[in-house]
Amino acid sequence: MEKRRRIDLNSDVGESFGIYKLGLDEDVIPLISSANIGCGFHAGDPAVMRRTVAFATQHGAAVGAHPGFPDLMGFGRRYMDATLEEIQDYVAYQIGALQAFAALQGTRLQHVKPHGGLYNMAVRNVEVWDAIAGVLAGIDRDLILVVLAGPNRETLKAIGRRHSIRIAFEFFADRSYNPDGSLVSRREPGAVLHDTRFVAERVVRMVTEGVVTARERSEIRLEADTICVHGDNPEAVSLVRNVRKALLESGIEVVPMGTFL
Amino acid sequence: MEKRRRIDLNSDVGESFGIYKLGLDEDVIPLISSANIGCGFHAGDPAVMRRTVAFATQHGAAVGAHPGFPDLMGFGRRYMDATLEEIQDYVAYQIGALQAFAALQGTRLQHVKPHGGLYNMAVRNVEVWDAIAGVLAGIDRDLILVVLAGPNRETLKAIGRRHSIRIAFEFFADRSYNPDGSLVSRREPGAVLHDTRFVAERVVRMVTEGVVTARERSEIRLEADTICVHGDNPEAVSLVRNVRKALLESGIEVVPMGTFL
Amino acid sequence: MEKRRRIDLNSDVGESFGIYKLGLDEDVIPLISSANIGCGFHAGDPAVMRRTVAFATQHGAAVGAHPGFPDLMGFGRRYMDATLEEIQDYVAYQIGALQAFAALQGTRLQHVKPHGGLYNMAVRNVEVWDAIAGVLAGIDRDLILVVLAGPNRETLKAIGRRHSIRIAFEFFADRSYNPDGSLVSRREPGAVLHDTRFVAERVVRMVTEGVVTARERSEIRLEADTICVHGDNPEAVSLVRNVRKALLESGIEVVPMGTFL
Amino acid sequence: MEKRRRIDLNSDVGESFGIYKLGLDEDVIPLISSANIGCGFHAGDPAVMRRTVAFATQHGAAVGAHPGFPDLMGFGRRYMDATLEEIQDYVAYQIGALQAFAALQGTRLQHVKPHGGLYNMAVRNVEVWDAIAGVLAGIDRDLILVVLAGPNRETLKAIGRRHSIRIAFEFFADRSYNPDGSLVSRREPGAVLHDTRFVAERVVRMVTEGVVTARERSEIRLEADTICVHGDNPEAVSLVRNVRKALLESGIEVVPMGTFL
Repeated sequence: MEKRRRIDLNSDVGESFGIYKLGLDEDVIPLISSANIGCGFHAGDPAVMRRTVAFATQHGAAVGAHPGFPDLMGFGRRYMDATLEEIQDYVAYQIGALQAFAALQGTRLQHVKPHGGLYNMAVRNVEVWDAIAGVLAGIDRDLILVVLAGPNRETLKAIGRRHSIRIAFEFFADRSYNPDGSLVSRREPGAVLHDTRFVAERVVRMVTEGVVTARERSEIRLEADTICVHGDNPEAVSLVRNVRKALLESGIEVVPMGTFL
Repeated sequence: MEKRRRIDLNSDVGESFGIYKLGLDEDVIPLISSANIGCGFHAGDPAVMRRTVAFATQHGAAVGAHPGFPDLMGFGRRYMDATLEEIQDYVAYQIGALQAFAALQGTRLQHVKPHGGLYNMAVRNVEVWDAIAGVLAGIDRDLILVVLAGPNRETLKAIGRRHSIRIAFEFFADRSYNPDGSLVSRREPGAVLHDTRFVAERVVRMVTEGVVTARERSEIRLEADTICVHGDNPEAVSLVRNVRKALLESGIEVVPMGTFL
Repeated sequence: MEKRRRIDLNSDVGESFGIYKLGLDEDVIPLISSANIGCGFHAGDPAVMRRTVAFATQHGAAVGAHPGFPDLMGFGRRYMDATLEEIQDYVAYQIGALQAFAALQGTRLQHVKPHGGLYNMAVRNVEVWDAIAGVLAGIDRDLILVVLAGPNRETLKAIGRRHSIRIAFEFFADRSYNPDGSLVSRREPGAVLHDTRFVAERVVRMVTEGVVTARERSEIRLEADTICVHGDNPEAVSLVRNVRKALLESGIEVVPMGTFL
Repeated sequence: MEKRRRIDLNSDVGESFGIYKLGLDEDVIPLISSANIGCGFHAGDPAVMRRTVAFATQHGAAVGAHPGFPDLMGFGRRYMDATLEEIQDYVAYQIGALQAFAALQGTRLQHVKPHGGLYNMAVRNVEVWDAIAGVLAGIDRDLILVVLAGPNRETLKAIGRRHSIRIAFEFFADRSYNPDGSLVSRREPGAVLHDTRFVAERVVRMVTEGVVTARERSEIRLEADTICVHGDNPEAVSLVRNVRKALLESGIEVVPMGTFL
């Protein structure tokens, strides 16, 4: 691995709906380089999408679609037994809807990252990644698919090659990893990290050395192009700020994934 | 008026939803030249959109978006007191969603025609046409906006010029017109015509002479680029067949509006 | 088993939505004794519910709630990873909504039968039956819970006793059964029976002898209080008519389950 | 007017949805005597309804339905051109749904107060009040209908008598009134009052003297049974606390409307 000088920071934003506000988008968007924007199925609505695309673009964050299951009541977190074809249709619909708002702002979508239950389904079943990759390729080959960095790296790269699209591997800044490189389930204690300093140091090491401290003090090799951070509350935003600061102080640029992939 | 040799036939299709089937799309799409496809707000869902775009494209009908109010329960027919900005957001979202399915089929959207309550709101308030035109211009200047042919022709043409988009004027094959060129309200008796032969003859005369027989036996001048027909039931489809036949027999080509506007 | 002289016929009705019509309710409701009415989550809307309660009541069919998952796009057929508490909330909401329309018609709900994916989840996991039974008991102890007749009869009866509610066991007129008394999955060939005469004879024998011919020509003992029939299309309605006729000719009364349970 | 010793305080609560939180229900519910609970159309979902009914009941607030238009995206604030029959169906559905959660808590609904756009439609068109009153009477004659106190008091009382239901007249604690007793439109400056002390004094005077200071320093006679207060933010809750304190200090009891109407 050659020394990495650039990394992307992504965050799920644009998840408000109607009168309902969710997340501190105004605070977190200026700190990230790629914005995953809700598209109206699990969260987000047309007005929220317009405003979020505009705000992200003003602050230099690249915009991407964050498609989810059609389950607003469950925030798209619940597994739904949708077929691959249904998933493709849902993803296409949501990408297209967001593309319109990007066009209205004079910009284009950079990436697509599935949300919640759909993301988890893909992590468990690589056919879902393949189905989604096919949609991106059919709509716009410049769209980057964001996937979970981990054990099945080569399979995912092959999917990208087959569909002639770029794949971005994602690292979760505040999640524990198992020794095999998979995420510790949220149901287990310690799945989410809260120590800001440890999180920041771990991110820098992952970027500069490709090494992550996992459970049971093991060290795993993990290469990622983009780091997922959150803006749910002031503490989360503070963590993003620290991660960003630590990266910059280590001489790492924080730039949209599309600029280096 | 120079002699018109070409006309477009448009119909609202793709209005099924989930398990629910609406309209005889398989019968009517092969007879028309432009398909107005529901986009998931008043009707239609991602799977229906995909299938309808594919079917229309296979049969040589140009595809367009048919955006409506977010009111599935009311089929988008009810007036909703949405602001111009909300309308723009809804229209952008729906156009974009359908564009994705067009892209997946290797085609592009030709036109946009608002549905039901939104169409009626625009007919009553030209600011709504202007707001929608602005969305089309912002997304893709090749998109044609379909509006009601009638009294405010010059205003609508000016809107098209201001936004640098094409405007298509629409004539309703089976609706009565008032002497001022406006549509007879559906609440009045005789608003909808059922005499297939009269309808076909009236359409041909409108196309060839620019004249329509209106209420009280008056004759009005009315120029239209596209004729709206329906596929709700076998009688409606039969009417479309007759209108198409009468046009062809009169030497008029039935072609997508985008080919001659 | 003493000789049974009465049986209930139930059918899923009230599954239209807005402009969308589903099922031949006007034909099938006069033939059945218990109507399972959609409650707006997987199908049905407030107007459909009002009309269906009124029509069923006029024709002497007892009314019951047919609650489903909040998935109109998937008609409630898809498994959703909802918690037991979410399921209880969804079922309570839908029962209550239908109770209002029953009250407006001067009647009360007789029973509750979960729909589609929710029913299947309960069949696979008895905790779901238990959770739903708890909701019925909390709302109105006169409500009967309709469950699938089959292998776990005693467990289901115990659930009824624990919650002090009545349980109705249901037999599917047109579905194949496995030798263990479970339903043959719809994914397997021959899962659905189409031979009207065989279906009618099998129903009569199940009612009079408690015996059902299952796969591989085995005979199984199966006791049921209510028989599920369908009104999806003219053939289905014709099958209901034949089943009803065969029952009456065998001296079996077709009456609402609440009259004999 | 005899001296009033009791008044009701009502507030719109239970308007969260899924992951989205709205309003400081935990703070405001303990301060009020009647809770208007969202029923899933404009806001609220089954889980929120269950929790809100439980919380209100624990804190001694009577529970009521707060039905709205089916417009989650617009929070039920937008006018929708629904027919009187559609409105009746929507209201019945929502009342019933909430009744189920009341039954599960061992309690019953006290009242019904329409929300937002539906409330405004009723204020402008007394036929809407009449239609809703008919629904209450058909479901449960003990349900109280909450209406706006103002110019058409006698008409509304006649509606109550005709349907044999109780009518509660409502005063808005923080809204300006016109000299004719109607509310100052929110579009006008000064429509909403922010001076906590003035609001509290005005409420006490309304209760004790039946007099309200309206615009242009006029004084109007206005009798109300219940006072609407808000819990949208800490300032609003603080205002409720002051209004309640001022009432108690004036020897007025704050009790559910059902106890004295």
